Amino acid sequence: MKIVTDIIEMQNESIDKKRSGKIIGFVPTMGALHEGHFSLIEYARKNCDCVVVSIYVNPTQFGPFEDYSKYPRPFNDDCKKAEKYGCDILFNPSSDSMYPKNYMTYVNTENITTKLEGAIRPDHFKGVTTIVTKLFNIVTPDFAIFGQKDAQQTVVIKRMVEDLNMNVSIIIRPTVREKNGLALSSRNVYLTDSEKTGAPNIYSCLHNVEEKYKNGEKSVAILKKNMLAELKKTDAFSTEYIEFVDMISLTPVQQIIDKTLIVLACRTKESNTRLLDNTILHTAAHITNEEMH
Amino acid sequence: MKIVTDIIEMQNESIDKKRSGKIIGFVPTMGALHEGHFSLIEYARKNCDCVVVSIYVNPTQFGPFEDYSKYPRPFNDDCKKAEKYGCDILFNPSSDSMYPKNYMTYVNTENITTKLEGAIRPDHFKGVTTIVTKLFNIVTPDFAIFGQKDAQQTVVIKRMVEDLNMNVSIIIRPTVREKNGLALSSRNVYLTDSEKTGAPNIYSCLHNVEEKYKNGEKSVAILKKNMLAELKKTDAFSTEYIEFVDMISLTPVQQIIDKTLIVLACRTKESNTRLLDNTILHTAAHITNEEMH
Repeated sequence: MKIVTDIIEMQNESIDKKRSGKIIGFVPTMGALHEGHFSLIEYARKNCDCVVVSIYVNPTQFGPFEDYSKYPRPFNDDCKKAEKYGCDILFNPSSDSMYPKNYMTYVNTENITTKLEGAIRPDHFKGVTTIVTKLFNIVTPDFAIFGQKDAQQTVVIKRMVEDLNMNVSIIIRPTVREKNGLALSSRNVYLTDSEKTGAPNIYSCLHNVEEKYKNGEKSVAILKKNMLAELKKTDAFSTEYIEFVDMISLTPVQQIIDKTLIVLACRTKESNTRLLDNTILHTAAHITNEEMH
Repeated sequence: MKIVTDIIEMQNESIDKKRSGKIIGFVPTMGALHEGHFSLIEYARKNCDCVVVSIYVNPTQFGPFEDYSKYPRPFNDDCKKAEKYGCDILFNPSSDSMYPKNYMTYVNTENITTKLEGAIRPDHFKGVTTIVTKLFNIVTPDFAIFGQKDAQQTVVIKRMVEDLNMNVSIIIRPTVREKNGLALSSRNVYLTDSEKTGAPNIYSCLHNVEEKYKNGEKSVAILKKNMLAELKKTDAFSTEYIEFVDMISLTPVQQIIDKTLIVLACRTKESNTRLLDNTILHTAAHITNEEMH
């Protein structure tokens, strides 16, 4: 595995690969790699000739009072893991090179970025779309692979790619979970022991809503009420939002339609960690979340 | 010359060219082609293997009370001219395909786009950077060629390309002028006869300031005063602004520094047409505006 820190060097590596007809698969990350990331890297390894993983904690997607400085950065460990799962080139640029003095250009997908996470984290998605655009221009991937865990991010990135005519296929892979159902996240390291005990309730409330829907319940109001009751079984966290939305526009639905995205966000009380999770309800019973997009 | 209207077809044409090692030169235009455009196309023809010219009157760079609907669109004539000067592929997308329903992603270079033209035409440059990003993603040029006539646009596009790590070389070519000095512009067709008579004063005031500077005058205040006096010789138009600015930040300078950009905008009284022009003052005497960037 080659480690590249220089933007132009990365750009040239990609140009060389493409010239020789290689298909580039790209997994952009902020490091602190876990099984969720590994599944994305493995997908790229299986489906592409060249696997690029970026590790870059992007300052522009953090709010001023968020965890940018304390975000975990176990770089050497990450390198070993990325290599183990099949990464060919690990791109690790410096912030000075990504956002030099007098940097002033941003990509913004309007409308859908002001809802849900965007309502709580203003400018978060502007930071995401900007860094993803920059990384796509540097890595020039054929495929870019993201996790379903950050559901709104997947919707925003797909919309940006379509709107700006970027020639990249966006692949969304299923959320990877702990055995107890907790969705993997680099931020799980912040959780206290009692939060870790309560956190699986988030998954069980999503699982229950899927079951109730399969059993015929189609009222969003009733399903949401059930979810809230399930989440209240623990006092480790409070619920920030639960929404049933259309997967393209992110507007709330009143009855379940095909591809209804259920997103929820909680905030733990001891470590003040935000936990996100989501599931997608399909009206066509044979479609599983593994093939969902 | 091939005429392409479909975005995916254009993208595939470019991919094919690049795979076979061809260098793509791109001239983005809004049509109504004139000698200024021809000089850009000729430059691309001389320096690249494949010349792509786009003709697209981009709605997002026009303000609500501007001339979007009346902007000249002599498409058949443009095709003949583009072909004559060496265009291989003319890209002419529809607005429905460029900005489909629910379009919501914009590229914005902040700060330098709120000054000068940006102060008079809010959101103009946001429209420019967005359409140029889209066109670059569709055409994937190695070189993109713009005219110096729209000086601020050249500064904004260069900044955007650098900030977003776009792998495109931006070439700026000198302004082409009528024999009487009037800078060529597709909007010159709006001018009345008496406006056409007065318009060359704009060039002569820029020419005079170059002469005065060469003869030792370095005070911006004095040079500007001279320009205003020159412009007042005609009552065909009023001056909107004259600014002496740094070519990177577009901030005003008090004394002439190397690469001082002098920009001016006038508005004609009869046809309400905006006329822009500019020149660059160099402290190193041997550099001409032909080699200026």
